[in-house]
Amino acid sequence: MDTPKRHYTRPLDLKHGCIDMNHGAGGRLSAQLIEEVFARAFDNEFLRQGNDGALLPVPVGQQLVMATDGHVISPLFFPGGDIGCLAVHGTLNDVAMLGATPLYLSACFILEEGLPLADLKRIVQSMASAALDAGVPIVTGDTKVVERGKGDGVFITTTGIGTVPEGRVIGGARARPGDAVLLSGTIGEHGVAVLSQRASLEFETTIKSDTAALHTLVAAILAAAPVGAIHVLRDPTRGGLATTLNEIAGQSTLGMMLNESAIPILPQVDAACELLGLDPLYIANEGKLVAIVAPEAASAVLAAMHAHPLGRAAACIGRVKEDENCFIQMDTRVGGRRVVDWLSGEPLPRIC
Amino acid sequence: MDTPKRHYTRPLDLKHGCIDMNHGAGGRLSAQLIEEVFARAFDNEFLRQGNDGALLPVPVGQQLVMATDGHVISPLFFPGGDIGCLAVHGTLNDVAMLGATPLYLSACFILEEGLPLADLKRIVQSMASAALDAGVPIVTGDTKVVERGKGDGVFITTTGIGTVPEGRVIGGARARPGDAVLLSGTIGEHGVAVLSQRASLEFETTIKSDTAALHTLVAAILAAAPVGAIHVLRDPTRGGLATTLNEIAGQSTLGMMLNESAIPILPQVDAACELLGLDPLYIANEGKLVAIVAPEAASAVLAAMHAHPLGRAAACIGRVKEDENCFIQMDTRVGGRRVVDWLSGEPLPRIC
Repeated sequence: MDTPKRHYTRPLDLKHGCIDMNHGAGGRLSAQLIEEVFARAFDNEFLRQGNDGALLPVPVGQQLVMATDGHVISPLFFPGGDIGCLAVHGTLNDVAMLGATPLYLSACFILEEGLPLADLKRIVQSMASAALDAGVPIVTGDTKVVERGKGDGVFITTTGIGTVPEGRVIGGARARPGDAVLLSGTIGEHGVAVLSQRASLEFETTIKSDTAALHTLVAAILAAAPVGAIHVLRDPTRGGLATTLNEIAGQSTLGMMLNESAIPILPQVDAACELLGLDPLYIANEGKLVAIVAPEAASAVLAAMHAHPLGRAAACIGRVKEDENCFIQMDTRVGGRRVVDWLSGEPLPRIC
Repeated sequence: MDTPKRHYTRPLDLKHGCIDMNHGAGGRLSAQLIEEVFARAFDNEFLRQGNDGALLPVPVGQQLVMATDGHVISPLFFPGGDIGCLAVHGTLNDVAMLGATPLYLSACFILEEGLPLADLKRIVQSMASAALDAGVPIVTGDTKVVERGKGDGVFITTTGIGTVPEGRVIGGARARPGDAVLLSGTIGEHGVAVLSQRASLEFETTIKSDTAALHTLVAAILAAAPVGAIHVLRDPTRGGLATTLNEIAGQSTLGMMLNESAIPILPQVDAACELLGLDPLYIANEGKLVAIVAPEAASAVLAAMHAHPLGRAAACIGRVKEDENCFIQMDTRVGGRRVVDWLSGEPLPRIC
């Protein structure tokens, strides 16, 4: 993200102006957009280096973690957040789920001709706030512009780097039979909040997206458990809790037995899902995590989650078990048992 | 980029199939797309970790470099390359321009509903080859799908990480008066090659994009110069040589005096630019670099460039000079002198 110091004839009209193709041409207007919108909001010592990349110090004796996430959510603004903060939280969370401390973010914007600059500014400020709150600077970036009808307002791809101490290995393949399956809070808010804003489906709801940066919750979990007791951490985003648990079961070649009545869900979300014919187990979350932990560590970890603002409604929702078919089974609220399978259909496109 | 081991009813139809919204829904079809297209092509030990991010070793005593680049080029395939290899080269080059050794790449794909899977496969294979040739693995990624008419086939954002020894500081703000401005080869091929394919502008040409990974050329340049003699390295992509030199002049608060007849250009490119009314100084390159070096190191660096396959046509095209207005001036081929200003218009949208 180059930030040449130039004097422009007049500042960008951030109230009434729109993105045009010149903003992506690499010339004076591109430089002005970067300077007046992005560099101003994201300002930090690394971005200020003003090169096509950033030079970054790393702590000694650590391993790197790298994660990337594209955000194409529609609509751009939704109850509880927008594509900007989501793009920060989503990638920070992917880094944190490997037990890493997120250190740096990059951001790439693909803007559609005609996007109001006021919308872009609002999104960028939301990103800047989210990055500031999380303590993780956006250190480099890129901006491209595509013609009207070849994009959808703005797409944001963020990439995060973090560090993790040597020897701390957390990942989807590390679940063990007997492990407790902990969930950090209520499910389905993000998906239902976004759905409530879709032009074709607008319905009244007070449900807000749960979008949040989970790295401090991860730090609390790690601090509460003996070394090696946290086997898997993952945020159940696109595809929801059901998809995440199926992924982990597949990676670890194990099954799980869940208890439906233990899975926290807000009554409004439950009601909205009922109304829309959706299963909340498949609805995206953006501020929740699943922790699969050694059984002896479960109660300490659960207590640490309860003590953190983002884990107050945490619960143990099941156990990992041997199962060569990698089935996720669930004892239902009405007393039956069912298989929670992979999603095949498409309940919610463009949810993150 | 999760790679759960699943058995699918039938493999993806990579000959006749198309992307549909289900490929982005996070369920079974998403997993299948990732497994059969991306993971298969990019296979490496880091990607195989199968988590939402990758755990990566870093050499001790090095600083990190991070760069990101969005690719929205139209058309997706062009003489000499395609969006896939371009997405690898573009980001590797941004990392290399800070004097760093590129180590890892991430890739995020935003796919448009209806994209033929055969096109996607060809693009992914081109990326995989480019990454393999460069020796830099794609270690993590993400895939999103947007509805027909909300994207344009495929957009690819890549992020690169590299390492640079402590104390090696190369950047746009480090040019010094008297420095030599070296250019690694002929300009304008990428832009003209892409333009030759645009439906509205199709014309006969044998010009191919120069897209290439420049990190080995950078290594040769660094090896040829005394420590600290390489002040700036930058690849003149979008906006061309003129924009890149203006950026550097602005960052260093200096001017430059160029010699037009020293700037290498293929006769076909010169002719095509004449025909289209374009100035080759503003046309994008994807396999060239500008090196601004201490005067006493210039001849050794130039010799090292000439000895490298990507620097055979390298030339010294000018000098850095004091100029508080940061003007790039040029002695023209016809004996005049002109200011090479920032680009204001939009000669070539969607060029990278």
